[in-house]
Order: sequence, then structure tokens, then C-alpha cells
Amino acid sequence: MAGKELNIEELSIWEDAKQMLLKAKNDGVETAWDRLQQQAPHCKFGESGVCCRICTMGPCRVSKKAPRGVCGADADVIVARNFGRFIAGGAAGHSDHGRDCIEALHAVAHGETKDYTIKDAEKLMRIAKEVGIETEGREPLEVAKDLAADFFENYGTTKGEVSFIVRVPEKRRKIWDKLGITPRGVDREIAEMMHRTHMGCDNDAANTVLHAARTSLADGWAGSMIATEVSDILFGTPTPNKTQVNLGVLKEDHVNILVHGHNPIVSEKIMEAVNDPELIALAKEKGAKGINLAGLCCTGNELMMRHGIPMAGNHLMTELAIVTGAVELIVVDYQCIMPSLVQVGSCYHTKMVTTADKARFTGAEHIKFEIHNGMEQAKKVVRMAIERFPLRDPARVKIPNGPVEVVTGFSNEALLDALGGSLTPLIDAIKAGKIRGAVAIVGCNNPKYKHDYCNLNLAKELIKRDILVIVTGCVTVAAGKAGLLVPDAIDQAGPGLKEICGALGIPPVIHMGSCVDNARILQLCALIADELGVDISDLPVAASSPEWYSEKAAAIGTYAVASGIYTHLGHPPNITGSEVVTNLALSGLDELVGACFLIEPDPFKAAELIDERIKSKRLALGLSA
Amino acid sequence: MAGKELNIEELSIWEDAKQMLLKAKNDGVETAWDRLQQQAPHCKFGESGVCCRICTMGPCRVSKKAPRGVCGADADVIVARNFGRFIAGGAAGHSDHGRDCIEALHAVAHGETKDYTIKDAEKLMRIAKEVGIETEGREPLEVAKDLAADFFENYGTTKGEVSFIVRVPEKRRKIWDKLGITPRGVDREIAEMMHRTHMGCDNDAANTVLHAARTSLADGWAGSMIATEVSDILFGTPTPNKTQVNLGVLKEDHVNILVHGHNPIVSEKIMEAVNDPELIALAKEKGAKGINLAGLCCTGNELMMRHGIPMAGNHLMTELAIVTGAVELIVVDYQCIMPSLVQVGSCYHTKMVTTADKARFTGAEHIKFEIHNGMEQAKKVVRMAIERFPLRDPARVKIPNGPVEVVTGFSNEALLDALGGSLTPLIDAIKAGKIRGAVAIVGCNNPKYKHDYCNLNLAKELIKRDILVIVTGCVTVAAGKAGLLVPDAIDQAGPGLKEICGALGIPPVIHMGSCVDNARILQLCALIADELGVDISDLPVAASSPEWYSEKAAAIGTYAVASGIYTHLGHPPNITGSEVVTNLALSGLDELVGACFLIEPDPFKAAELIDERIKSKRLALGLSA
Repeated sequence: MAGKELNIEELSIWEDAKQMLLKAKNDGVETAWDRLQQQAPHCKFGESGVCCRICTMGPCRVSKKAPRGVCGADADVIVARNFGRFIAGGAAGHSDHGRDCIEALHAVAHGETKDYTIKDAEKLMRIAKEVGIETEGREPLEVAKDLAADFFENYGTTKGEVSFIVRVPEKRRKIWDKLGITPRGVDREIAEMMHRTHMGCDNDAANTVLHAARTSLADGWAGSMIATEVSDILFGTPTPNKTQVNLGVLKEDHVNILVHGHNPIVSEKIMEAVNDPELIALAKEKGAKGINLAGLCCTGNELMMRHGIPMAGNHLMTELAIVTGAVELIVVDYQCIMPSLVQVGSCYHTKMVTTADKARFTGAEHIKFEIHNGMEQAKKVVRMAIERFPLRDPARVKIPNGPVEVVTGFSNEALLDALGGSLTPLIDAIKAGKIRGAVAIVGCNNPKYKHDYCNLNLAKELIKRDILVIVTGCVTVAAGKAGLLVPDAIDQAGPGLKEICGALGIPPVIHMGSCVDNARILQLCALIADELGVDISDLPVAASSPEWYSEKAAAIGTYAVASGIYTHLGHPPNITGSEVVTNLALSGLDELVGACFLIEPDPFKAAELIDERIKSKRLALGLSA
Repeated sequence: MAGKELNIEELSIWEDAKQMLLKAKNDGVETAWDRLQQQAPHCKFGESGVCCRICTMGPCRVSKKAPRGVCGADADVIVARNFGRFIAGGAAGHSDHGRDCIEALHAVAHGETKDYTIKDAEKLMRIAKEVGIETEGREPLEVAKDLAADFFENYGTTKGEVSFIVRVPEKRRKIWDKLGITPRGVDREIAEMMHRTHMGCDNDAANTVLHAARTSLADGWAGSMIATEVSDILFGTPTPNKTQVNLGVLKEDHVNILVHGHNPIVSEKIMEAVNDPELIALAKEKGAKGINLAGLCCTGNELMMRHGIPMAGNHLMTELAIVTGAVELIVVDYQCIMPSLVQVGSCYHTKMVTTADKARFTGAEHIKFEIHNGMEQAKKVVRMAIERFPLRDPARVKIPNGPVEVVTGFSNEALLDALGGSLTPLIDAIKAGKIRGAVAIVGCNNPKYKHDYCNLNLAKELIKRDILVIVTGCVTVAAGKAGLLVPDAIDQAGPGLKEICGALGIPPVIHMGSCVDNARILQLCALIADELGVDISDLPVAASSPEWYSEKAAAIGTYAVASGIYTHLGHPPNITGSEVVTNLALSGLDELVGACFLIEPDPFKAAELIDERIKSKRLALGLSA
């Protein structure tokens, strides 16, 4: 490890994290923070986006001395191309996940599996009707066939526009049409983004950025939205429920299994398998009191939202969860799974199991989950975890104390229920200035920040200002660990928000799910805009990803902006080498799509600036600031 | 311009290039060679592929001191991810071009345009039948509707395998199935490649490389193949014809228009417009003797193959063509168009016109071509060129002398015709050792090489050894300028090749079209393998791209290898930082798919090594070496 010793106090705001960072140090385990130090300082060309490896006339790095790459591309073109591919990577992640959900729905509808079923037939029928499928007098499985077919078409070329365009307010659709960024098909926009960024294609930075926006919209209003809706249909639409969060959810006397990744297709079956009496008996035979399942990151969010499975931690806690020494097995599907987990696991007795052919890890055990064998494979995985329990070294186990209570499960359906069946109470509260606005804080951790410092402080600052906060993804864990995801947290909110949330019995920070579930927030914004007869960009709302790291977060931020939602990021993507792209992001897009990005690492300043924006939107609507 | 003065003699083997390089220097025009010098030395991290910008925990650069990125990815994972995206970029380029062709076919079939028609109805019916569409007693336009629909499905999710899988020899299909690399859908494989390479997905380098192979196969056996077949249907299947090549095809007393890019949809209409009597009259009014159209790169190949339009030059000649000072206008669609052309044009009176929304160039005029208005837009472009003729400064015009004759137009259909209707004469010649094998030399220029030195010398060396050479893309121009694309060139061939080509009246170097037309070569290999009852990997054939630069070339090389064709590259992609990926490329793939890459910058050594491979394949087939 290069450089000076890490100061653990500076790395995270959390006690459980700090205890495990110390243990990692003592156990000789390398973590992301160590590697960040090794990688610092980062390459300035890469950081500003002006390095190009798109052809082998290069690689090129533009600078004042060499202002163009070999092909003639300048900083603007190079930055825009790199940014376009970055967004394509993010959109592809969410959307390919969505495709897997459709494949499951298709298999269920066609009777090709007994392992999965339709859990929410009412939602199936409702969604099908919404996208124009005949439902009257038809069996759910028949409707499901058509819905799967329609959703598959969202990934093709011929549809012209994605199905959930029906959810987009009229004014917004006109903006997209005018700019030529109405999303036609998920894979098409991704493939076109890759084509445009080949050498000698799109050499106008603004044009490239607009297609990045289109690609991100295909993610938000199709790939992600389909993933969410199909997951609800297959696994149930979340309703409020209580559970716990932080490393304290691990149990010293149980077989501990962690699920990590994104798609509930794997984690749902693991959840069922840990409840299998035969397997529980086997665990007891091996000396454990039972089997304990906990989630990490987004697949953790999915299980928490729907079933109240406890959550062990977010992105930067994934290595540290293994450092407890108490984890028998971590089973993953795809996305955001640090490759290092294999190495961290090998320092203990922790087995890592991969389940998707598209995400294998050198050194991990591969147990391929398919729609027809999910249950069988899940049992195999759980059995494997149990077999490892006797290998645990009690001397190396340390589980931090004190999990924290959270309330979760706020799908839009559940939120509407909580509001008594209509948006009116929410809209009235907004009009009255009791809820001044709403901000979705989403996304990741990044070791460049003190872990969760920005995520948490932004949430706290906003609720103080009577701004409702919605969280998804890794920010959920930050809010949860701080006790913000329970109704009692209204004590930390401003008077208006306290009054409304108190009356409704909901927390001032609402958990809406995983990262694909940001699509729920898009839908909610559209519903409110429609109710008010305005565009999404007219609403007193914003989005934020204070500690983001991933391409998916950038795609989410971009679809938020392109949907008209002012979006805060703690740091910019690698675009600062281009004036054109940077200016577009920070202001130019505001003129084009009615929203832009705000970059601000300080959560207190960010809260101030977001508040200013919300004020201006309120005033424009004729409301009090 | 940094560094020492460029030695023009070292930059190109061609007189026309050297004259223009000297003129560029005197005119103060910057070229790719100047920029290459500015960019040297290239970043070693980038060149070896170990730099990662896939998330904002980085950018990371792995080294001995810092062997893993912040996420934990090692050199193997990082290189594989970068390589996967590189291939996705190439596959997306070809395949999105194919999609545009299908959209044109669809529009024609549905009567949505009068500007495009079906020129080869026989081929339409034949291809439709081949992919399982009913043709008996049906009208071509009806069949075309179904064919367009089927081809669109090749870009979707539900097809399972691409349509032209029917062309793949049985043994090859089994290999792909076993490895899980049968291409399912073009966009799907591209999107999955982007998903897999997101942080925390595919973290096994070999697994990632295999999906890169699958993505490339979707390009070769679907995207590119569809582009080629639909282009033949819409614009005619090429038959042998004569034309000329090099900068001497420009005419001092004519309005000179260059077409550059890839898709015949634009260039075909420009070709028609330059023959419009009204426009010719206008050109004469403006003082020109007429309108002269010449091609560049692949769109030049398309027009040359089908219509004998002369070819001004390949990749590294595109800037130099403008340096003649004799070009009124260059009209482009997409891919391989140096962004610098706008700047070079602005040094003269040359207007640059872009035609595709997905490829705009800052500073160029945009005249959007759509299927319904192609002719109208083409006339607009030609008129614009004519208007610029009076702006030409005769004192700054210098057109190199002496265009060279070429024979072109060898589609597989034309080749079969030349063989008398069956492959038997070719196969007999191979069996008899008169033609010892065949090598496709394809792809680009790259200023890192003496322009066309390797392309040309490899071709010369191979024909001397009785190895038939097939050329496409930029290599066409190299072979053409050297006089290898005429029947008389048999004098430079070995005795066997001389005898056979002499008897058939064909050149020893056969021009098969543009880069997407490498799909013709795949098909030809499959036909020969089927005829012999063997796999493609058993054939005494190879592919080569000595001076490649583009992601598309890497995709072509990868689909060639994955199809069983030993493939030479002058230099590796940016993979050398990973032992796993490099070993796979250079040998591991040979065990998996029956072919691998050979990296060799020296064309004479490369010829030797390719010859060795052909010998071994011949011996394995029981033939003389």
C-alpha cells in the first residue's frame, strides 16, 4: 500500500464501518479505500475526459500543446464521445436487467417455469391496460404473454417510441420530439450511442450529448421502468413494512448469507430457500441456530421493500460485511459487485457464488440461475453456505452492535394508499407550502467522500427545510442507519413536513426501492405534473446523487434532467475538459429541456442551492417560496 | 507542431500522397501525420489497455505498484472490459448501418418512398427464401415487407439466433453453441456487452472476451451481412466492371464532388444527381466542363463495386484529397470521417456536408437525408457544390497525374458467374494446389505505418505464393493503385494462381467491396466449407488487417477468428496489459474456436507466417502443402 496511513475516522461516518475498517487493517485485508490511495493522484486526462482510446491511431490525450487527436477530434468531441459511452454503459446495465425480468415474465406466462409466478395480478392487468393491451375478460397469464411481448418490443427497432411514453406529460413529449430525443427503443439507442461515438461519426459535442440524453430516457422510461413494473408483477408490489439496517443485522449464531446485486430473480429464490425447513434443519445440524439472510445494495433494497429482509449495508459496506468474519456465503447476480469481494472472502471462510453467465468472477463458484431452475439452484447455494458454517473461525468474528429500525415499502401504489387513495393531500400540502417540494436522493457511495457524509447531511438539511426526501439505492442505507426512515424522524423535519408526515404516519424520508426503482419517482413526478396540468420541469422537485460512482448513476442523472428534473451531483462525470459539454450540463440543458445539473460536493451548500431552485419553481407556480 | 520535421518520403508509398503532403506543408494544412507526431509518445497505460474510466471511483491505471483499480479489478478484467467495449463500438457501427438499410427496404416495400426501389428482385427473392420467408407466387414488394420485418427482428431480443445462422456450417454452429456464443440479436449483444463491462458485472476476462466474440459474430453474420444483402437488393448486386483509382481521378475542369462514409443510401442518390441534365447545365454555366464524382473509403467502395465510380483514395487520402484544392464539396454519412476534414476544407473552398443526424460535424453544413427525400437532398448538395466552383482558386489547385485502372465488382454472385456457375473450379484449383489458399486483406490505414506499405506488400507476397487475395475497404485502394486489381497482374502471381486467374480472366487480387462486405467473404468461406463437408476452420484461408485503426476492424477480426479464420493484425488492440486476454487472442482462442490472431507488423514476415498456417491446413485436409 502506497502513501500515508489511512485515518479511519476520516473514511466513514458510521461506527460499524469504522470498526470493520480497523478489523480489516488488523486482518491484513485490502479495501477500496486502500486502493483509492494507491490510485491517487488520478490521471488528469482521464478525469477531465480528454483521453481517447476509441481507435488505434491513438490513444490520444488532448492538451493546449496537442489540441486534437490524430483523427482531428478536439476536447469537445472526445469528452462528448466518452460521456456518451458512459451513459450507454449505465443505460445498458439497468435495461439488460429489465430484459431479464421480461424473460421471466414470458416464461411464467408461457408455463415454462414453476419457480416463478405472478404475485400481483391486479398490477399486471393495470399495467397491461396502461400500455394498450386488451384485458377485459382475459386470464392474467394470457395478458402476461402480451405484456411480455410488448415489453420485448421496447428493446427492438420498430416500435417508434417506448411503451411508457403514455406516462410522459404532453408538454414534455413535445420538448423531446422537438429535440429528436424521444426514446425509440432501449437497445437501439444504446447501439446508436456506440455507433455515433465510433471514430468519424458524430463530431458535434452537443449532438452527441443529446443522444446521450435520449439513451438515458430509454433507460428511465423503458429499461428501468419495465424492470420495476415487472418485478412488482412477479414478486409483489411493495407495501410499508418494518425491518432493520446496518452490519448488526448479521447474527453470530446463524449461518449468514448475503445477497448482492440487482435483480430480484435470484434473491427472491434465495429468500425462499433460507426458509426451507430441511435446510434450516441442516443448519442446526451444523451447529447454527438458523439461517440469516441479509441484503446488500440494490438487491438488498428489492428484498427489503417487498419482504422486510434486513439490509447489511451499501456499496462501501460490501467488503466490510465480509470482514465481520461471520459471512458464510455471498451470492451475487450483477452490477456494482466489487471484484475485490473474491479476495476479501478468501481472507475468511466466505464463499462467493455468481449466478449470471454475464457476470462471472474469477475465483468465485458459478451456479447458473435460469428461470426454470431458480429454486433448485437457490437451495444449492444455501446448502453450500450451511456447509461452510463449521469453517467459520469464531476468533475472527466481530459483528458490530445495534441494527437500526427502518420503515420501507413505499411504492407509488403504497404511497397513494398512505395518502388515502389520491395525490390531493400531497398536492394540497405542496400548495400550502407545508411540503415545499421533494428531492430524490439516490445512488452510490464513492470512497472519494467520507462514506455517507454527503448522502446523509443533504437529506437532513432538506427535511429541515420542509422538503420531502425520497431515497433509493445506497442512499437508503445512509438514511436508514441515521434513523431517518421511521415516522419518529419527523422530529428532525421542518414544521410543515412534520405536520403532514405526522398526520399520515409516514417518515419524512421515504424509501422507494432500488436504483431501477427511480423509475417510480419519474412516474410520481409525471402524475403530479399531470394533476397540476404542468410539465415536470415546473414542479418544485429535484434529484441528487451526492456520492455517486457508477455509469448507472450518470444515466439516472441524465434521464432526470432530460425529464425536466434539476439534478445535483457531488462531482461531475469526466466532462470538465470540454467547455461545450460542461456548459451544456450546467446551464445549456436548462434552456433545452428545462433542467440542468448542479455540481456541489458540500451537502450543506447543495441543500441551499437546491432550496433556491425549489423556491424559484414554487414562485413560478404562483405559490409561496 | 511538436517534435522534428516530418520526412514526407517516410509517410507514404504513393506519389499522389507525397505530392499532397508537400502541398499541405506549403499550404499550412495540418494532417493526421502531424497530429500523430503531436500525440507521440502515446500513453502506455492506454496503449496496453490497463487504464479504466468505467466509473468515477477512478480513473484508475493499474501497474505493479497499484495492481488493482479502486473496485478491485485487475489488469485482466480492465483490459477485457475495454476490449469488449471496443468490439461493441465496431459492431454497433456496422450494424446500425445495416439497420438503416433495412429501414430503406421497409420504406420501399411499404410504398413510403419513390426515391429508392428494388434493383435486384431476384436476389430479394433468393435471400427471403434462404431465411425462410414464403416467396412462391408472391410479389417482390410483399416479400420485401416480410424480409424487412425479419431483418428488424435480428436487432431484437426474441429471435434466439440471427437469421443468417442458416449459412453457418453445422460444425461451426456446434462450437458456438457449446461456448454459448451463438449470436442472438445484434443490439442485444451490444447492449449486453455494455452491461457486462459496467463496474461489478463480468469480472472474468475470458468470459468477457467470449461475449466480445459473440457480439462480433452478431456483426458479421447479421449486422454487416444484412447491410450487404439489403444494399444489393436496393442498389443492385455488383458485377465486374472497370474504373480508376487514386487522386488523379479528380478533374481540373470539372466540379469535383467527393462522397465519403459508408452507406450507399446517400451516395447512390448523389450519383444520380450528378447525372441530372439540369445540374450539368448549371455546372457548365458556372464555367465547369461537367460534374465529376469520386469516392473515398467505403462509400467509395460501394459506388465502385456497383457502378464503376472512380475512387479518389483511402483513409489517409481523405485529407489529402481536399489538399488538391480541386474539391468543391465533400458529402459524408458516417464512420471513419476524420473530424479534421472540416478544418482542411476551410483552408480551401471545400464545403463539407453532413447527411445523418447521428453524425453531425461542428462547422459542416447539415442536409438531412431521409428515405423519402433522398433525391431532393442529393440535388441540393450537388447544386451547392456547383455554386462553389467559381470560388475555387486555380493557383492553389494541384491534381496528381495518372489514375490507375482497376477491375472491381466481385460479389459472390459475380465470382460464381466467373467460375461458370459453381465453386468446383475454385475448389479443384485449391485441391490441386494451384490456388494454395485464400487470404482476405481488409481494413484501414493508420499513420503509425508507412501508408499502404504493409497492405500492399502483404498482398504482393501472398499472390507470389499462389495464394488468392481478396480485398475490401481501404486495402482495395492500395491494391488498385499498385495495379493488382486488373487481370494483367497475374504476372506478379505464382504459377498456379497465374494459370487459374489467367484462364478465368480475373485478377489475382479480387475486390469484394466495402468493410460491411467482409460478410461476403464469410459467406464464401461457409459455402466452400459446406462443399468440402468441413468447418471453416479447416480451410486453407486467413484474414489480415495490416494497417487497421478502427473498432470496426477489430470487430471484423474478432468475428473472423470466431468464425474459424486465422487472422493477422499489424498491431494488437490495446490488450497487451493482460496476459489472459493476450494469450487468449494469440493461442487460447485457437483451442476454443479453431482460430486465433497473429500480430506482426512486418508484411514479409506476416506472409511467411500466414503461409505456414495455410500449409498446415492444407496438410490436415490431405492436400499438398
